[in-house]
Amino acid sequence: MLKVGIYGASGYTGQELLRLLVGHPDTDVVALTSRKFRDIPVSEVYPAFAGITDLEFADSFPKNLISSCEVVFLALPHGEAMKVAPEFVAAGIKVIDLSADFRLRDVSVYEEWYTGHTSPDLVCKAVYGLPELYRDDLKGANFVANPGCYPTGIILGLAPLLSEGCIDTSSIIADSKSGVSGSGRELQLGSLFCEVNEGFRAYKIASHRHTPEIEQELGRIADTAIKVSFAPHLAPVDRGILNTIYADLHSDMSETELLDIYEKFYGDEKFVRICKPGTLPNISSVRGSNNCDIGIAVDGRTGRVIVVSAIDNLVKGASGQAVQNMNLMCGLPEDAGLNHISLFP
Amino acid sequence: MLKVGIYGASGYTGQELLRLLVGHPDTDVVALTSRKFRDIPVSEVYPAFAGITDLEFADSFPKNLISSCEVVFLALPHGEAMKVAPEFVAAGIKVIDLSADFRLRDVSVYEEWYTGHTSPDLVCKAVYGLPELYRDDLKGANFVANPGCYPTGIILGLAPLLSEGCIDTSSIIADSKSGVSGSGRELQLGSLFCEVNEGFRAYKIASHRHTPEIEQELGRIADTAIKVSFAPHLAPVDRGILNTIYADLHSDMSETELLDIYEKFYGDEKFVRICKPGTLPNISSVRGSNNCDIGIAVDGRTGRVIVVSAIDNLVKGASGQAVQNMNLMCGLPEDAGLNHISLFP
Amino acid sequence: MLKVGIYGASGYTGQELLRLLVGHPDTDVVALTSRKFRDIPVSEVYPAFAGITDLEFADSFPKNLISSCEVVFLALPHGEAMKVAPEFVAAGIKVIDLSADFRLRDVSVYEEWYTGHTSPDLVCKAVYGLPELYRDDLKGANFVANPGCYPTGIILGLAPLLSEGCIDTSSIIADSKSGVSGSGRELQLGSLFCEVNEGFRAYKIASHRHTPEIEQELGRIADTAIKVSFAPHLAPVDRGILNTIYADLHSDMSETELLDIYEKFYGDEKFVRICKPGTLPNISSVRGSNNCDIGIAVDGRTGRVIVVSAIDNLVKGASGQAVQNMNLMCGLPEDAGLNHISLFP
Amino acid sequence: MLKVGIYGASGYTGQELLRLLVGHPDTDVVALTSRKFRDIPVSEVYPAFAGITDLEFADSFPKNLISSCEVVFLALPHGEAMKVAPEFVAAGIKVIDLSADFRLRDVSVYEEWYTGHTSPDLVCKAVYGLPELYRDDLKGANFVANPGCYPTGIILGLAPLLSEGCIDTSSIIADSKSGVSGSGRELQLGSLFCEVNEGFRAYKIASHRHTPEIEQELGRIADTAIKVSFAPHLAPVDRGILNTIYADLHSDMSETELLDIYEKFYGDEKFVRICKPGTLPNISSVRGSNNCDIGIAVDGRTGRVIVVSAIDNLVKGASGQAVQNMNLMCGLPEDAGLNHISLFP
Repeated sequence: MLKVGIYGASGYTGQELLRLLVGHPDTDVVALTSRKFRDIPVSEVYPAFAGITDLEFADSFPKNLISSCEVVFLALPHGEAMKVAPEFVAAGIKVIDLSADFRLRDVSVYEEWYTGHTSPDLVCKAVYGLPELYRDDLKGANFVANPGCYPTGIILGLAPLLSEGCIDTSSIIADSKSGVSGSGRELQLGSLFCEVNEGFRAYKIASHRHTPEIEQELGRIADTAIKVSFAPHLAPVDRGILNTIYADLHSDMSETELLDIYEKFYGDEKFVRICKPGTLPNISSVRGSNNCDIGIAVDGRTGRVIVVSAIDNLVKGASGQAVQNMNLMCGLPEDAGLNHISLFP
Repeated sequence: MLKVGIYGASGYTGQELLRLLVGHPDTDVVALTSRKFRDIPVSEVYPAFAGITDLEFADSFPKNLISSCEVVFLALPHGEAMKVAPEFVAAGIKVIDLSADFRLRDVSVYEEWYTGHTSPDLVCKAVYGLPELYRDDLKGANFVANPGCYPTGIILGLAPLLSEGCIDTSSIIADSKSGVSGSGRELQLGSLFCEVNEGFRAYKIASHRHTPEIEQELGRIADTAIKVSFAPHLAPVDRGILNTIYADLHSDMSETELLDIYEKFYGDEKFVRICKPGTLPNISSVRGSNNCDIGIAVDGRTGRVIVVSAIDNLVKGASGQAVQNMNLMCGLPEDAGLNHISLFP
Repeated sequence: MLKVGIYGASGYTGQELLRLLVGHPDTDVVALTSRKFRDIPVSEVYPAFAGITDLEFADSFPKNLISSCEVVFLALPHGEAMKVAPEFVAAGIKVIDLSADFRLRDVSVYEEWYTGHTSPDLVCKAVYGLPELYRDDLKGANFVANPGCYPTGIILGLAPLLSEGCIDTSSIIADSKSGVSGSGRELQLGSLFCEVNEGFRAYKIASHRHTPEIEQELGRIADTAIKVSFAPHLAPVDRGILNTIYADLHSDMSETELLDIYEKFYGDEKFVRICKPGTLPNISSVRGSNNCDIGIAVDGRTGRVIVVSAIDNLVKGASGQAVQNMNLMCGLPEDAGLNHISLFP
Repeated sequence: MLKVGIYGASGYTGQELLRLLVGHPDTDVVALTSRKFRDIPVSEVYPAFAGITDLEFADSFPKNLISSCEVVFLALPHGEAMKVAPEFVAAGIKVIDLSADFRLRDVSVYEEWYTGHTSPDLVCKAVYGLPELYRDDLKGANFVANPGCYPTGIILGLAPLLSEGCIDTSSIIADSKSGVSGSGRELQLGSLFCEVNEGFRAYKIASHRHTPEIEQELGRIADTAIKVSFAPHLAPVDRGILNTIYADLHSDMSETELLDIYEKFYGDEKFVRICKPGTLPNISSVRGSNNCDIGIAVDGRTGRVIVVSAIDNLVKGASGQAVQNMNLMCGLPEDAGLNHISLFP
């Protein structure tokens, strides 16, 4: 059994990691940290875990964990993870960082969109944890930067088109709709039930920090610099991201031709499902699972392709993908502990 | 008091008309029809009306209404309204048709997207009922085609930019999110609570019937043929449409410059509210009101403007706009009976 | 026009008062206070008010208001209202207090359930603001304690049965379900969207502070001390309280006989609607209105009557009832500014 | 691997059975029937199953199944199951009936509340499938009547108190709140999103068909005839039932004493979790799991105990309990395939 720890485990991402790791056949969760809930049992903070685990949140000081863990997940805010990661990496513990701190390969871009970086030397050692694109690099890797929730679905949605050169790379627009758990469990006015329920709004249009991450990865696939218009929205649901992505086709292509490209690109990928012609994804079909569902429509009248991708932001968009990365890093079957069928309704 | 009737009054649009007209200071609702609920009191079908009105749904045969009404609202499915409208118009009753039957000026376009038209001669007599664009034509008009819910918010969102020639007319993409009441009260699997709740999906991308209506009106403003990519989505809320609209700017323009254009274009419009710089609309701020809120963001990195508009699909997107049209047609103050403050939360 | 002020206007109750008073034909809102949002326009805190009012929140110091208001609504937390009320009352301004501070006639009971009382002398001067029971006292009154949200629906639900002596007063159980706006706009974990949505729970069973208020009023109607079991629940909706109330009948009575008692008791009451036999209330039929809907069922097998009452907690359960009280205190028509038809769906 | 079939598999209960059985380590689902969706792949009717199973719904004629199944689940409406069950039972196939047809031991009671019974002889052969009460009978049983969703949570909530004789058996009131999936996937007005969302209502008070089932089982535990007042409500959530149960205590007992009784009664039960003192269940903590969470409060002022129990109506209230029964009937570990941690948020 692999001994794993979660650093910063009291947020929604942390407790979702715990849900997945407790149910994982090959892992033993030995440590959870939370400054806020130190010495409090997980089951008091999240009653869903009553009777499932007796774990308590430990103090956040890393020394306690170093001796007992083989893998550590960092579920910390950006800016915090970069302070903690070096020590674990130096100790030879495999690290999966769910923050943004090591996702952007160009430190200056990170500093432009986020904050000053205190561990710039470590950036180049991190593998970007999107298994469908970087599987070989992830096998046996020691330090992984887990992708952001929005980038995951947008990159997976566009990769086949960019890889095949089907679209005008200057024409990409991503209109994304996220459930509220993406905002975390912090107390903020905009996360109150009465502020969100029966509402719908856009936020941080053209200024969201996931923009450079999306552009970095799309650019690598296309082998050219890409700028996208990215407009995130808040939807009154707990979980799920639906991305609706628009791009100009270079030439007339039918839905069937395009779906063929997707089928070939993703082949036997365990966690990417291509929707049948005429059907499109719904976030309710991926809830609780590590799947990314992708469907497409062609707007022949305007020469555009419209790609729709759906993930559970807490699973494929965060904790599930982190476990998938752990499996690859540690030589376990890639889908170990990730065979959840979506919970519907 | 103006005597008014609602033809096909048992759907959500019909009952919303009733809510507005019962509260209107200058109207007296004398007749409601519904084949399905004939002879049943409204308050049994919609308990919200208990103690408010004793009206019963009448048989749908129009003769009964003709003698007693000065204005008739047609809240029927497309294809049905065209059968009923001619008789009312011929009888000199003012008609406001909430269906799509008389919105498209080119009958062949209607027949391409909908069905065969049985009253093509009447099409040219209908005024398109968007008061912010056609106020002069609506004053004293006898026959009005009330706009669709999606077109209302999209046209109002783009009119200033097209009027001023700021954007590339081939670049328009409208990503719209609608509440479930837009699907009506019919029994269909996709409208069940468990199918919609905690879900989010796109539907009829690049094939929704509101597309030609949007294009017709945008084209008239721009004085050139326009094609748009239109992607509607279903959001798990009762009411509201949020449109996120993307277009390429012809030249660098700041948010301030663009907002100025909007402020000037809409001037003292009673029901259009321009959001302050840095803020964007939320459907929860227009719920139950006849307002259309509009906000914009400039994506300087890609040269695009992103317009966000929000309406209540049952009010400004249907019944409220119909009452606004009635007011203009009958010489009443344009906002009579429409001064509802949004219900929040 | 009556000059009115709202003291502590930035919560959901305060903004609902504003919605009602701005739409009221006989009132002019001259002052709003909020410590938190001082000098900020209401429309920035609640965008629904954009274009409706230019009012800003003022500093909370009462001196500013005293000269300009004829009526002041106190929408403050309990414990705060008692500090502010005396000055307004002394200045001859009519005061409607929406807190619990002056609802309990026995100060020792207040102090047992709440906190020490700093204005005990004023308690006996407050009229309990439930118009259906205390209309005569409210006409011309200067100081009114507006009822709690739960007590309003429970008292109205049981008054006819207690007045007629139909039920065993020791058998009363009230199982209540409230929307989340009842918890206010404060930042607390239990009010976050993801904590409430798709959840349902009881809280403060047998210990909620509304219990003594319910008992006080039921006891006055029955002319005997009454103890009830009261169990509130949190429902994932914005607005509304549904109370399901159980009591043992003294003798066999049919639903029809009982409904007759209700019809007679409430007669022409404008805001109480008795459901037809076989039908029961739904909070969605009172949303946004000042109505209290009441339905009953008889459980002949166990000899119990089950009363179900529904209100909008922010309207009849708080701000609407406060306006109804203001109307009575100031000699206005009791329903002035309160003729909203419920917003459905 | 155990070969299992689901008869009537296209409803929410049927697809939930499929979710659990596909993930079960010891079962192989060989047949699904649905008249409505005959020859259609499950993944078209429920996209969550795309990539998970290639199964199609078969014609409903039982002959096809008889040879290939060792266990059959009947997920049919009441009245239908009784027609199908005899053939399977006669063929030596283990049958778990999720309908009400074989739950009531007294056929005359069944016929009073439901309809005429066509297989009365089979009634006495059915074991009532509540493992916590009938485990020994279920081990090796061939025919099991799976309990109703409401009875499951109410019986588990009261069993310890009745077993110990703590409460007045004539005083029991159960106020239950159910998610919408309990109404099934049929097209009915009351299940539409806009009719349910932002609403809350009671239905079938004192007349719901689960009443005699609740009374039968409570009576057996108490060894005396019991009548209860049962009031179900519809809550705007997908899944979950919260029962709030009231009863008069025979004598003063503290929360601690009562919780001791619960802890002893349920001992090591895998799927019953007793809440810590001062805490109460939330349906969101059992969503997707087979757990029943139980909490209690004592109302010392009125001498009542209030029990709150929470289950997922589709899991412990239907399909999960059916799998638990299958495990017992077939000698598998009782929790095989049922170790799902609740999905939160």
